[in-house]
Amino acid sequence: MMGLAGIPLGLEFTFLDPSPDACAGAVGSLIQADFSDTDAFRRLAGSVDVATFDFENVPESSARAVQEIKPVYPSPQALGACQDRLHEKNLLSSLEIAVPAYHPVSSRTDLLEGLDKFAYPVVLKTRRLGYDGKGQAIIRDQEDLERAWQKLGDHDLIVEEYVPFEQECSLIGVRGIDGETRFWLLTRNLHVDGILTLSLAGGFDDALQAAAEDIMRRLLDHFSYVGVLTLEFFVLEGQLLVNEIAPRVHNSGHWTIDGAQTSQFENHLRAITGMPLGGTSALCEALMFNWIGELPERDRLLAIPGVHWHDYGKAARPGRKIGHATLTAGTLFELAANARLVAAVAGGKFPVLLNSIF
Amino acid sequence: MMGLAGIPLGLEFTFLDPSPDACAGAVGSLIQADFSDTDAFRRLAGSVDVATFDFENVPESSARAVQEIKPVYPSPQALGACQDRLHEKNLLSSLEIAVPAYHPVSSRTDLLEGLDKFAYPVVLKTRRLGYDGKGQAIIRDQEDLERAWQKLGDHDLIVEEYVPFEQECSLIGVRGIDGETRFWLLTRNLHVDGILTLSLAGGFDDALQAAAEDIMRRLLDHFSYVGVLTLEFFVLEGQLLVNEIAPRVHNSGHWTIDGAQTSQFENHLRAITGMPLGGTSALCEALMFNWIGELPERDRLLAIPGVHWHDYGKAARPGRKIGHATLTAGTLFELAANARLVAAVAGGKFPVLLNSIF
Repeated sequence: MMGLAGIPLGLEFTFLDPSPDACAGAVGSLIQADFSDTDAFRRLAGSVDVATFDFENVPESSARAVQEIKPVYPSPQALGACQDRLHEKNLLSSLEIAVPAYHPVSSRTDLLEGLDKFAYPVVLKTRRLGYDGKGQAIIRDQEDLERAWQKLGDHDLIVEEYVPFEQECSLIGVRGIDGETRFWLLTRNLHVDGILTLSLAGGFDDALQAAAEDIMRRLLDHFSYVGVLTLEFFVLEGQLLVNEIAPRVHNSGHWTIDGAQTSQFENHLRAITGMPLGGTSALCEALMFNWIGELPERDRLLAIPGVHWHDYGKAARPGRKIGHATLTAGTLFELAANARLVAAVAGGKFPVLLNSIF
Repeated sequence: MMGLAGIPLGLEFTFLDPSPDACAGAVGSLIQADFSDTDAFRRLAGSVDVATFDFENVPESSARAVQEIKPVYPSPQALGACQDRLHEKNLLSSLEIAVPAYHPVSSRTDLLEGLDKFAYPVVLKTRRLGYDGKGQAIIRDQEDLERAWQKLGDHDLIVEEYVPFEQECSLIGVRGIDGETRFWLLTRNLHVDGILTLSLAGGFDDALQAAAEDIMRRLLDHFSYVGVLTLEFFVLEGQLLVNEIAPRVHNSGHWTIDGAQTSQFENHLRAITGMPLGGTSALCEALMFNWIGELPERDRLLAIPGVHWHDYGKAARPGRKIGHATLTAGTLFELAANARLVAAVAGGKFPVLLNSIF
């Protein structure tokens, strides 16, 4: 999606990916290498003017290897800060940004201490390499605790209070090399088994949008950040708690391709190449459906008004995100009506999930 | 642009182009061959499920060579019918579609006969291989006549009455394999030296839109057409005269990428692959600026709200279309104001041309 957004801007791409079949190969040249292969990253650096990443588990050391040769945006420092949940939360706290209460866990004793502080339920998470709900467990009782400790006890961990959130949402913003910032609409996110499944653009009041932008601005300025940044929030009693920072374009911003004046991908590229940023306002109502594990029947979906199809060209595999569709509409009524048609075709969790938002 | 539209649909592309540097190579594999190389077209046919063209001077024989192996949409017959201005006008007349009065010219005597019929000024055109104003001459007097005859007299020609049109516009429509049709807004076109320079989406009354759609429907049905078709019209005293048929996506429809629910490229691909068609309604006001011969200063333009940049990755050459920008806006006032900013940066003919529309 980054490549597709960049070609009209006159950009050319070299991608680095561990898979020889990486879908990005359709829109640029491909260096097949592990993310830890610093030599390959140096080769990448030699073939480009500027480098970026769309996956936050690229090792900071790999990003630094590139940075010795060519600019890397966002900075390896920002990347590194978001790779460890404990550091991330310490940073947020130091910037006076609200987060769920947390406690570092290096031993079973630490975990019991955390439980003393927060009481059941709590969430135990690995500090590093978690995504899509991987590397975490909700602990509701002693039995859960034993199971979670067996599964995760070998890692550096963090235990957090469980937030009985009313909603989850994310803010995607972008900061240019010149420090200019732009933000898209807060987007409501619905997860199933820890994996993002639906994202609805907007619908939050102006005060919450402003509060989210204020929080993100503190982070952008802290890092002298360049590129797209994503914050995932819990909404609890009308307040925002930051759940996670993603130093990259984000799945919950895919609706911006079809529903916003400028997509997150285009603005990320504009930012890191020093171009002026594009407008981020929404053109219409937009709801994104993630296709996880398999694609639903494309042609039945394309027959529904306002469906925009995004097939990533990836092999189907359980739990893997292999595409999405964004439904756009002029009004929320139309969006809701057509969303029910989409959900009926896509099946699975979608019909029930939709009932929780419309 | 076709490839960029097709990748999210899950399509893969093989392109055939005479140039080894063809920009399409960035989004698919490339067979470098002349458009007359039927062997190469057979190879192309072997590597795809369905074939199309975005240039109407591909020889009909090449399209037929593909058709012996794989489906070609639009049909080689429709392609052929649009390659000869005389056949095209005869067809339109037989379908009772208004065209400028015309007269076939195989000799100087024929030309003088035509002049007797229409009186000065007239337009002399080659029957084949004309585009962007090439292969035609306006004849206003005896001196023009001699010059035009020297330049074009070796070709099969057609002479037409000169139409003192009030405006030029085009309609782009699409017909699916199942016969479903969709149409975008009539688009006003401004040419400089015969080359399209500005296209403004919409602004025509409902009756003219309906009249244009009715004309196109007759042609679509006549050909059992599949894919995108373009009609260029003169508007004279509120009536439409067909100037040209283009059996393909069209420069005057490039605004649909940024300004319509579904672009001409995506709907062309949906049509020829048998997918349902997407909505064609406009999302906003849209004005396209063609970059001819050279690109203006990209970053100064991207700083103007609503500018969408399209660099084709082609080498700059006088008279060559190497990119465009589409300006979008929520209102016509905003569009006009920002269009003046674009014109000021782009310079050339743009400021004066804009004054003729806003």
